[in-house]
Amino acid sequence: MSAHKDFAANNQKYVETFKSGDLPIPPSKKLLVVTCMDARIDAFSSLGLNLGEAHVVRNAGGRVQDAIRSIIISQRLLGTREIAVFHHTGCGMLTFSTPQLREIVKKDAAPEHATDIAQVVDQTNFLEFTDLEQSVKDDVEFLKGNSLLLKDTTVTGWIYDVHDGKVKQVA
Amino acid sequence: MSAHKDFAANNQKYVETFKSGDLPIPPSKKLLVVTCMDARIDAFSSLGLNLGEAHVVRNAGGRVQDAIRSIIISQRLLGTREIAVFHHTGCGMLTFSTPQLREIVKKDAAPEHATDIAQVVDQTNFLEFTDLEQSVKDDVEFLKGNSLLLKDTTVTGWIYDVHDGKVKQVA
Repeated sequence: MSAHKDFAANNQKYVETFKSGDLPIPPSKKLLVVTCMDARIDAFSSLGLNLGEAHVVRNAGGRVQDAIRSIIISQRLLGTREIAVFHHTGCGMLTFSTPQLREIVKKDAAPEHATDIAQVVDQTNFLEFTDLEQSVKDDVEFLKGNSLLLKDTTVTGWIYDVHDGKVKQVA
Repeated sequence: MSAHKDFAANNQKYVETFKSGDLPIPPSKKLLVVTCMDARIDAFSSLGLNLGEAHVVRNAGGRVQDAIRSIIISQRLLGTREIAVFHHTGCGMLTFSTPQLREIVKKDAAPEHATDIAQVVDQTNFLEFTDLEQSVKDDVEFLKGNSLLLKDTTVTGWIYDVHDGKVKQVA
């Protein structure tokens, strides 16, 4: 695989018009967005955010349970006070279960690593979901009830539709 | 905090020109990019990536140790075979240590949550680093030596310069 071989040439074009070299580290909107790693999501463009305005945490599903380390650093060291959680239509997280994925990984394991791999994946919750809107509400509740977050944190929950680009607030 | 109150109006403009509603779930470049949550990084634009081409995982520092769940899902269920790891200049992860951050969180804890909070943060490695280039090399090595990844995975390591927008391959 060689997608990285295009990075230098593509980046050269980006650099030619780059004008944001003096932005401070703390996000100016004091905002952190959590969203999915899905290739069809451009968090900045779809929300009208500019460089320097918001932290963006992305992982499989946009699950907040997997973002706590980042959220603590964002709030305590870099001043964010608002979290917006986005999950999206057509998400891969709606298509499998943790037990299924554990079996896939274990089945493919090289014999010399089979025991180690089984031990790790059997302890991994892959954080899939079956109800999109409920998963957003669950994540918002998880954050609101988490004593590791600062008390004055504003938390909202959203669905992004990959088919028309629209966002909708659900929590 | 009310940054989210602008999402609907900003998104309306995005939707008006949105034309990518029929992209499939698997990233067309079979690429996963890991980068920092930093507000000054636009992963798509800086690498010339288009919607649908690459998974983007973002967390504090762009640390791969914190991305394994997402990488497994990306590889096993959605077909990616290449990982590009980006850390960046001026990263907040160069400015603190895990023991310092643990103290900050514990000092601010409400008395009724103090024990719970101490227990969690004392077990959390915040994954900061002191040498930017070495941190990229460490993460690339971590992935190359990880038996949970598919054997044929291409892994590269990069530094993004927030002051001029340039990327540089270091591993």
